[in-house]
Amino acid sequence: MTLPYGIFSTGDSAPRVGVRLDNQILDLDMVGRLGFFDDLAFNRAVFQKPVLNEFMELGKPVCRAVRQRLIDLLTDPEKPLEAFANFVLIDAKATTLHLPIRIGDYTDFYASEEHASHVGRMFRPQAEPLLPNWKHLPVAYHGRASSIVVSDTPIKRPNGQFLGPDQQPVFGPSNALDFELELGIVIGKSSGLGEPVSVSEAEDHVFGFVLFNDWSARDIQRWEYQPLGPFLGKNFASSVSPWVVPLEALDAFRIDSPPQQPTPLPYLQSTGKNHFDIHLEVVLQTPDRPDDVVISRTNARHLYWNVAQLIAHHTVNGCNLNVGDLLATGTISGSAPDSYGSLLELSWNGTRPIHLPDGSTRTFLQDGDTVILRGWAGEKEVDFGEVRGIITA
Amino acid sequence: MTLPYGIFSTGDSAPRVGVRLDNQILDLDMVGRLGFFDDLAFNRAVFQKPVLNEFMELGKPVCRAVRQRLIDLLTDPEKPLEAFANFVLIDAKATTLHLPIRIGDYTDFYASEEHASHVGRMFRPQAEPLLPNWKHLPVAYHGRASSIVVSDTPIKRPNGQFLGPDQQPVFGPSNALDFELELGIVIGKSSGLGEPVSVSEAEDHVFGFVLFNDWSARDIQRWEYQPLGPFLGKNFASSVSPWVVPLEALDAFRIDSPPQQPTPLPYLQSTGKNHFDIHLEVVLQTPDRPDDVVISRTNARHLYWNVAQLIAHHTVNGCNLNVGDLLATGTISGSAPDSYGSLLELSWNGTRPIHLPDGSTRTFLQDGDTVILRGWAGEKEVDFGEVRGIITA
Repeated sequence: MTLPYGIFSTGDSAPRVGVRLDNQILDLDMVGRLGFFDDLAFNRAVFQKPVLNEFMELGKPVCRAVRQRLIDLLTDPEKPLEAFANFVLIDAKATTLHLPIRIGDYTDFYASEEHASHVGRMFRPQAEPLLPNWKHLPVAYHGRASSIVVSDTPIKRPNGQFLGPDQQPVFGPSNALDFELELGIVIGKSSGLGEPVSVSEAEDHVFGFVLFNDWSARDIQRWEYQPLGPFLGKNFASSVSPWVVPLEALDAFRIDSPPQQPTPLPYLQSTGKNHFDIHLEVVLQTPDRPDDVVISRTNARHLYWNVAQLIAHHTVNGCNLNVGDLLATGTISGSAPDSYGSLLELSWNGTRPIHLPDGSTRTFLQDGDTVILRGWAGEKEVDFGEVRGIITA
Repeated sequence: MTLPYGIFSTGDSAPRVGVRLDNQILDLDMVGRLGFFDDLAFNRAVFQKPVLNEFMELGKPVCRAVRQRLIDLLTDPEKPLEAFANFVLIDAKATTLHLPIRIGDYTDFYASEEHASHVGRMFRPQAEPLLPNWKHLPVAYHGRASSIVVSDTPIKRPNGQFLGPDQQPVFGPSNALDFELELGIVIGKSSGLGEPVSVSEAEDHVFGFVLFNDWSARDIQRWEYQPLGPFLGKNFASSVSPWVVPLEALDAFRIDSPPQQPTPLPYLQSTGKNHFDIHLEVVLQTPDRPDDVVISRTNARHLYWNVAQLIAHHTVNGCNLNVGDLLATGTISGSAPDSYGSLLELSWNGTRPIHLPDGSTRTFLQDGDTVILRGWAGEKEVDFGEVRGIITA
């Protein structure tokens, strides 16, 4: 069972914590009021909050106990919740979903070797695809937390400064709007300033995962990014899925991490099943033909650096983590041309337009296009749902 | 009068809002309880908060009215506060000062032409000192908010990965720990996602200024920063001064902005007195001789891009600002060698050690060194106080 956590509201009720069950949402505040958590020692007011932060602050032992209690209640042959279904189960279609986390800091990594190599081949064709540091450390930058929005929030095409046809800077709407398929890692346990988190402790700081679309304006990004990295090309919006999949839901889908050559420095060395087998796909709906067209299929197994390594690196200098921080993996691309996680790669920087069933082509996104990222593990035993956004003028 | 706002506590009392007056702190909660703000329509509970955010949220008209009321009370020949001095005035030495802002997002700019040129000359000696984009837009990156600490917090030398003498990556304590002299801009008014703020509206979003030390580990930064910018080389700590100088305090110290060639795009064009004449200095105290040695004297007038331009650029793509966001100018350097805002520049990347009165030299900071940034306008009519940090092993 996935049992992802999110924040929902109905009508004029206040946003509160729920768990998604297929087409219904289980209202955890109501489950608590009915006494089903009474023997678990925590303040059930955490389920009345408009974000998951206070629940996550309770720590892994409590969060695990709540998850186990839900599994027990939902699999008990006596169906203890059935008599209260009218109170605790809500038709998902009748709800509004909200940004589930009060996000502190947001960090974006660059952890897919294929993605980093593709970008290198496009922008530095005469050089090695990967920069010298890439296999020694998980490259990352800090992104903008304030403009992270929940799925279904329309994405306004950003204005900005970029080089025009004569290589002079011009101002206007971006002509190279792109998505990036990523996983987001929700931090559920803080670490102190000056206190590094080791690889072996790192997953204890992970509450769960979301799907993450790091919208990117490539023309703005290309002109601005040297020497300090991406800024306005990224910070106009990023979208997250409304449901946070707990780390524990993925236990059955752990896989060995790929071998790393050269062997990283000791603080980054990791053994065991620290990767996750999560299927990911990108769907594009065009205004003229709003049915699903899958334009990329990939998998989180393609990441070079695992989640524990990202956290160990992030904190090795003493940088502190707070509950509600969001780390994203960076674009996840495979090696096959239909497994790339951005239009930049799928259209090879606009040189190979992709062809769609409605007869149109795309190099970058057009107004009215809807991008949907989906993720699941196994035969959807674990379902991440989707994160969706439509481009507006 | 400066009348800067900060957060202080005494003994076991809760942190609350105060205003600095030379060696005393005026307790605004107590001034409010005595009724001196009763005719100003706001909830004086904002002065009982452990951060300034709720006060700033009241908006500029209220914040200006409070400042004017304080000026009136303090300059009234009848000295209306004198009878209550025991209640409202606290010896600053008996207080603890706290981080004054609950910081949302933190953005660091690169707005000093001299600083950017010096870095360019050091690291790209064969090329133009400034990259092609630099005079067309205020280059910036997002930094880490969680590790911003208040003055007097000790700074632990970070561990990290950098290139060793044989150009192979090694792990250990940074050997190139540096300060950066910057001004911080505290955002006091939000802007909506998708709603750019024009140059002419921009200062309405500024609550005030702080001194800002963007500690930097140059060896870590140099190895990690390509292609996505600074990360662990910066995010282990930044220090802010405890007192926030309101924008209004600086009205008498406005100066014309320097001419900009090439003329920036219309959304960045700015006229009038949008620069500030703020003296800045860097003091180094060494463990063996802890008296003040001024190692740099500079001025905020040396910035190329002004505050209004920074805000207009930051939001032109629709990126939203929240009350409590912090923007920093980037290192402020002048053109004279004793006006550089970092050791990287003062020691020219370690090639020209600076000589100190205790007989020692510095290329970068040593354990036990204390760095103090100070700022003032005029003959200290406006005083920023200082931000101070000692390096620990």
